[in-house]
Amino acid sequence: MKPTAETSATPLLYIASKQQQDYLDLLQQSSLKHIAITQDKSQANIVLADPPLLAKYLDELTNLKWAQATYAGIDKLTKPELRQDYTLTNVKGIFGQLISEYVLGYSLSYFRHLNQYQQLQAQNKWQPIEYQSVMGKKAVILGTGSIGTQLASCVSALGFVAIGVNSRGLIPQGSMFSQCYSTEQLDEALAQADVVVNALPSTPQTYHILNAQHLSHCQSALLFNIGRGTAVDDDGLLLALEKGWIAHAYLDVFPQEPLPQESAYWQHPNVSITPHIAANSFPQQVFDIFEQNMQRWQNQQPLLNQVDFSRGY
Amino acid sequence: MKPTAETSATPLLYIASKQQQDYLDLLQQSSLKHIAITQDKSQANIVLADPPLLAKYLDELTNLKWAQATYAGIDKLTKPELRQDYTLTNVKGIFGQLISEYVLGYSLSYFRHLNQYQQLQAQNKWQPIEYQSVMGKKAVILGTGSIGTQLASCVSALGFVAIGVNSRGLIPQGSMFSQCYSTEQLDEALAQADVVVNALPSTPQTYHILNAQHLSHCQSALLFNIGRGTAVDDDGLLLALEKGWIAHAYLDVFPQEPLPQESAYWQHPNVSITPHIAANSFPQQVFDIFEQNMQRWQNQQPLLNQVDFSRGY
Repeated sequence: MKPTAETSATPLLYIASKQQQDYLDLLQQSSLKHIAITQDKSQANIVLADPPLLAKYLDELTNLKWAQATYAGIDKLTKPELRQDYTLTNVKGIFGQLISEYVLGYSLSYFRHLNQYQQLQAQNKWQPIEYQSVMGKKAVILGTGSIGTQLASCVSALGFVAIGVNSRGLIPQGSMFSQCYSTEQLDEALAQADVVVNALPSTPQTYHILNAQHLSHCQSALLFNIGRGTAVDDDGLLLALEKGWIAHAYLDVFPQEPLPQESAYWQHPNVSITPHIAANSFPQQVFDIFEQNMQRWQNQQPLLNQVDFSRGY
Repeated sequence: MKPTAETSATPLLYIASKQQQDYLDLLQQSSLKHIAITQDKSQANIVLADPPLLAKYLDELTNLKWAQATYAGIDKLTKPELRQDYTLTNVKGIFGQLISEYVLGYSLSYFRHLNQYQQLQAQNKWQPIEYQSVMGKKAVILGTGSIGTQLASCVSALGFVAIGVNSRGLIPQGSMFSQCYSTEQLDEALAQADVVVNALPSTPQTYHILNAQHLSHCQSALLFNIGRGTAVDDDGLLLALEKGWIAHAYLDVFPQEPLPQESAYWQHPNVSITPHIAANSFPQQVFDIFEQNMQRWQNQQPLLNQVDFSRGY
């Protein structure tokens, strides 16, 4: 964004978040100056908002110049029927760590049989299970943005070989990916995977990318969906689990949340469900980014983490 | 070891291991030359052995010059009443990785509530649990040898601050420890710990080091014993669990193995038991070390991983 006299006008901030009070408290404690909070949507030129709420209020925010999203996932705002005449920034950098904790927690538990040992202990049984180190196992990461890159770094530190999949098939500079495939070569990447992690944004290209056709190339891999729910074709995944292409699926995001009671995933023995917690937005960390961006706004500097509406991320 | 004409004589190898056949197969496939295998203990000058078996046969191995242990833990061989007139080498470097997988698998499961989510899923419940990143949590590692150092590196990659405890209180060069305390300052280190990992060898100084007095300085920490069983004073640990000094204990090693059926640990809700599998000796990896040492022996070079009987490790 190239700042203009208009964009750097006195900030009139509207906050729309489930964590409203947290953000008000953080704002009060912060060193930010000359910011007025407004309850009148039509007056606000700046908004700090959860993307679903922002999408709902877009038409009323007639003076909106800049919106800071409190999530990484902003697909609710990139639909072509919605206005895109404002600067949208999201939060990055704080999620890669949390996603890495989630993926490694489950992966190490799986490969080191921690659940089985819990069951054996319940029966007072001392019974070693054969295992191998995760060293050299291949983690195929779909999406090589800030989350995928941080994940590649963490899994590599534990001895995994990180393989990326992205639109161009190029290794991001300075990343720990040992190799990157383009989306067209997805099947080739999946065929090698011990672990598959979907960290792709929701775009028309990634809709149902994890379907039976692609998943049939996996060989007893673990599958993580921590990106967006729309990436998974449910029938395809259920088939992949039945066929053993996928040994276990760890699903944190779903097209409809909470996951409907009738979903076959709930009681599937090889599916672990978590309620969209792989990477929470912690208000303090979101606010740190908002604070930096607000200072940049006031100093007429370009904002960080700007979303490109045409790419959808 | 300074090689002499005698020590570099034709190797007459005796193998004593639960994985005897694996080692024989590996030897056959290897590039090692001019080695004779003997079944006669009194003839052997070199032994590849599991430490408990070696301890049993020591008196019969009248020509023993060098013994390669198949474990890291060689306390069965450093008892003062046993002979120490031979070169003892153990295996290092392959265990740090496995221990790191174990400690991080359990730690991430704990801090990210993976067990609770499993229980919620069994009830079809979509219920987020508040959490924090492990970033900045403190992992206090007792023992800064090859296992402790590798562990420090892995936990640091996941955002933990690694704090070491060793006899001198000095940070090992090139390690990821942010700080090291001496054994005398153990309580100061424990007071800060979110995670405590015992990776100390079994020596008179480390016997029952994890007792009520020391553990009382912990504040709701996770405790891992992946060192030796004798480090833990059982009554002290049970008290620490009752008082909440220790939130959960993960025990992989015990003074008597298998853990006796009458042990209070089996059915303790805040204890996880594993059957001495945190770091297995995989024959291939042990053999790699043996092979290197054998080549050094034949070339009259100093052997790797020599044990100092006087220090006990």
